Amino acid sequence: MTPPERAQTQTARRSAQTATLAEIAREAGVSAPTVSKVLNGRADVAPATRNRVEELLRAHGYRRRRAESTRSPLVDLVFHEMESAWALEVIRGVENVARDAGLSVVLSESAGRLTPGRTWADQVAARRPHGVILVLSELDESQRALLTSRSIPFVVMDPAGDPGSDVPSIGATNWQGGLAATRHLVDLGHRRIGAISGPSRMMCSRARIDGYRAALETAGVPVDPALIRNGDFHHESGYRLGLELLRQPDRPTAVFAGNDLQALGLYEAARELGLRVPEDLSVVGFDDLPVARWVGPPLTTVRQPLTEMAEAAARLVLELGRGDEATPAATRVELATSLVVRSSTAAPAGA
Amino acid sequence: MTPPERAQTQTARRSAQTATLAEIAREAGVSAPTVSKVLNGRADVAPATRNRVEELLRAHGYRRRRAESTRSPLVDLVFHEMESAWALEVIRGVENVARDAGLSVVLSESAGRLTPGRTWADQVAARRPHGVILVLSELDESQRALLTSRSIPFVVMDPAGDPGSDVPSIGATNWQGGLAATRHLVDLGHRRIGAISGPSRMMCSRARIDGYRAALETAGVPVDPALIRNGDFHHESGYRLGLELLRQPDRPTAVFAGNDLQALGLYEAARELGLRVPEDLSVVGFDDLPVARWVGPPLTTVRQPLTEMAEAAARLVLELGRGDEATPAATRVELATSLVVRSSTAAPAGA
Repeated sequence: MTPPERAQTQTARRSAQTATLAEIAREAGVSAPTVSKVLNGRADVAPATRNRVEELLRAHGYRRRRAESTRSPLVDLVFHEMESAWALEVIRGVENVARDAGLSVVLSESAGRLTPGRTWADQVAARRPHGVILVLSELDESQRALLTSRSIPFVVMDPAGDPGSDVPSIGATNWQGGLAATRHLVDLGHRRIGAISGPSRMMCSRARIDGYRAALETAGVPVDPALIRNGDFHHESGYRLGLELLRQPDRPTAVFAGNDLQALGLYEAARELGLRVPEDLSVVGFDDLPVARWVGPPLTTVRQPLTEMAEAAARLVLELGRGDEATPAATRVELATSLVVRSSTAAPAGA
Repeated sequence: MTPPERAQTQTARRSAQTATLAEIAREAGVSAPTVSKVLNGRADVAPATRNRVEELLRAHGYRRRRAESTRSPLVDLVFHEMESAWALEVIRGVENVARDAGLSVVLSESAGRLTPGRTWADQVAARRPHGVILVLSELDESQRALLTSRSIPFVVMDPAGDPGSDVPSIGATNWQGGLAATRHLVDLGHRRIGAISGPSRMMCSRARIDGYRAALETAGVPVDPALIRNGDFHHESGYRLGLELLRQPDRPTAVFAGNDLQALGLYEAARELGLRVPEDLSVVGFDDLPVARWVGPPLTTVRQPLTEMAEAAARLVLELGRGDEATPAATRVELATSLVVRSSTAAPAGA
């Protein structure tokens, strides 16, 4: 959707929020039960009819009256990718809140695409969950419209991009985390401090690296672009970019990794080059997955309260579902990160 | 349920499998729609009535006619506990099969109890999934009866106990895995080989330890009970029991751990005692989680094809749902384990 279109739709919403199901039906030239079928995600409606109805629902900003009794006791949880132990912490948080509320969790993976498929949105409309929690995943405009017209609230956890100011979201203080990690290294006496980031299209990666820069600049340490590498959040990326950084003639004595898995990749690169952690190289991770305590040496890392963030997201989406407003005022909550110092960081040799 | 009761129920099933919903209603003294409400897990039936109907359904071995159209496009996945990265491999496998079949996955955790709660069974009956996959989790007799009467098939993955010969299940060749791991250590020249097992109530742990014994006995190495420790499948257990084993005067030169997390705990115990892996201590794990490749040194382990097992379980439960028989002949499939040799095993010092 281009910007002019978006503006137009928003105007339509403001002017006609009270369109009834019968009015939508009349305008579409179909019966009210047909509109109802579309809203319920039933398969027995011709695609053309369905598209026409969906467009009118969207144009009129139609919102189904909330009827608690017609909802299924389900909450939808959608991952961009369910790759690492990271996902498990999130699932656990959502499970905790759902169980207390007597709800079950439906899990989907958008399989590497940032936006779940069209089929997914139809399935959600058909099963009428209490709400949808998206993890590092986004909805396109038509999916948002589809959920809004069914009064199915949604919350984004730790947005990959910029979720828009009107999307409720739960994040962590990524910038503060990057700042704390890098200050810790500066305080130990490091001056050649490298950084391996996550994907630059993800806001959380950018915020962490910006925190890293801020720590260096406020300490009067020049930022050297040769010491910053962009990768993704996988082990392999930490290994490969770690080798690049550590093979430089004036190699860094410390590296701030984008997450714990990258930090483990960096461990492997250091082993391969005969560098000891922390004697020859200090490493800081991000996330504090269980494995951070288990590796040798135990990893200094920035704790991101993933389970608590997921709990907060689940509570928020259930609150939105109970509220009087189908789409509440913008809500953005950031939970605090904190530095956990273990054994992978030390003063640089000769300091 | 005691054995005589079980026999009685089975007789009743054989003799009266054709009881109709109307006959059940008559015998219970309620209307047919009331029986239908019970079958659909509706809340608006008095508990006493509901129990009476459930008992009759069970006594008559009633099985709902399978009507594809009344099923929700869901598959239920129930974990005993969703503790480790192990769970993620399983979720991924079930997701793969469900996605291809156009189904979504509902996740539950029996929160450390081996049997999911009563509420869970009611929720499953109400949401009518295509099937239920239980992971290291069991159903009690009444839960099995409840699913059977609704024609909701179920499959147990990697049973914790003895699921009964009439429960379809997918496992791995745990005994062969224990054998291969221990033979590898014997072949390297080790004679003092310790073992840390998982919980002895879990058949998979027992099978692994029996494989370990078989390897020692067939190699003419005496089994020393002082070298075998029973724990659970957590990191902490490997650490604590590892310290016990390694502090013995005649300590083992190699240890077969019950799983990868225990092996990482063992790494930590060895580090604490100043023992190097593999120079002073060889370690073999079980599972081959992603982290096994990432730790230092990379872990020699028995690969259990968790994702493939979960895929097999999901395919089996969908097949059962499509089949003509609501409860098919007993099915037990074991997928092969395989030894993956990395860098945590070597010949003992002085060998």
